[in-house]
Amino acid sequence: MSDKPKPEPRFTREIPPGEDRERSVCAHCSFIDYRNPKIVVGSVATWDEKILLCRRAIEPRKGFWTLPAGFLETGESVEDGALREAFEEARARLELDRLLAVYSVPRIAQVQVMFRARLIAPDVAPGPESAAVRLYPWAEIPWPEIAFPTVGWALRHFYESRARTDFAPYSNPVEGL
Amino acid sequence: MSDKPKPEPRFTREIPPGEDRERSVCAHCSFIDYRNPKIVVGSVATWDEKILLCRRAIEPRKGFWTLPAGFLETGESVEDGALREAFEEARARLELDRLLAVYSVPRIAQVQVMFRARLIAPDVAPGPESAAVRLYPWAEIPWPEIAFPTVGWALRHFYESRARTDFAPYSNPVEGL
Repeated sequence: MSDKPKPEPRFTREIPPGEDRERSVCAHCSFIDYRNPKIVVGSVATWDEKILLCRRAIEPRKGFWTLPAGFLETGESVEDGALREAFEEARARLELDRLLAVYSVPRIAQVQVMFRARLIAPDVAPGPESAAVRLYPWAEIPWPEIAFPTVGWALRHFYESRARTDFAPYSNPVEGL
Repeated sequence: MSDKPKPEPRFTREIPPGEDRERSVCAHCSFIDYRNPKIVVGSVATWDEKILLCRRAIEPRKGFWTLPAGFLETGESVEDGALREAFEEARARLELDRLLAVYSVPRIAQVQVMFRARLIAPDVAPGPESAAVRLYPWAEIPWPEIAFPTVGWALRHFYESRARTDFAPYSNPVEGL
């Protein structure tokens, strides 16, 4: 890190030349911040029919339960990203089974790509962003303590399709967000 | 647009506090440019078994044929983005059928979400980024003039699955990129 103090970026909304919509442009340096939606990759991973959940150690929704998932990084495939997140958040080694769902969450500019997966071993442990990790039988999933709506969707869609090998992946349920 | 001349952004690679990997940070204003991969949404859209292709009017691959597709915008679902791109590039009104494929192209930091779709009417016309649009019977697809590898993948995957209603979406073919 440089020790030189830096000004804060100062973004204004402008329509750049040749474009059809406003973008955030930094008044200091003319950088155009193309705020395209981000991709979240994650998995519903099981061991012996129990589902891996992680208790969040960070905001938002600290203390609530989530699936291992996070932002895809540059240079990764969606599959590699889902495997990395499972290891980062739960020290879990997975084998991906198939694509479970592609959810769009326009309000927060996210597309979530969720896989169905199997744990290679039941040894899981909290990574830095998790306060706890646990393998939950379906009947014991802590529904009132689930962190985000899409986690609930993925769990329900996983359960609906658990006996199927070939199916179209789910998208947002009709009730939407 | 402001007329005031602006300096160019000047990005250096730094590991921001609390992070585990280098990011691009502007030396002028400390803006952290999280370069997450971008989402491309598009479709293989048909009318009477003919496939809609667009001849690119812009670089890269100007003059080559592509499927209607482009970057997902903030505030859109993947479905809405695919419909918008078909209209922008080919003035085509579509009805999406189902998810055909999710391709990862780590080299250029893209995830491509491709749908199978039907044209609501055969009236298509070039938008500003297309030099021509055409409905191609499968046997006449101009393979040597296809713009990008993923367009070829989507066309082949579309053809393989054309008689199926329920199937797992495709990902990158094994030969990869």
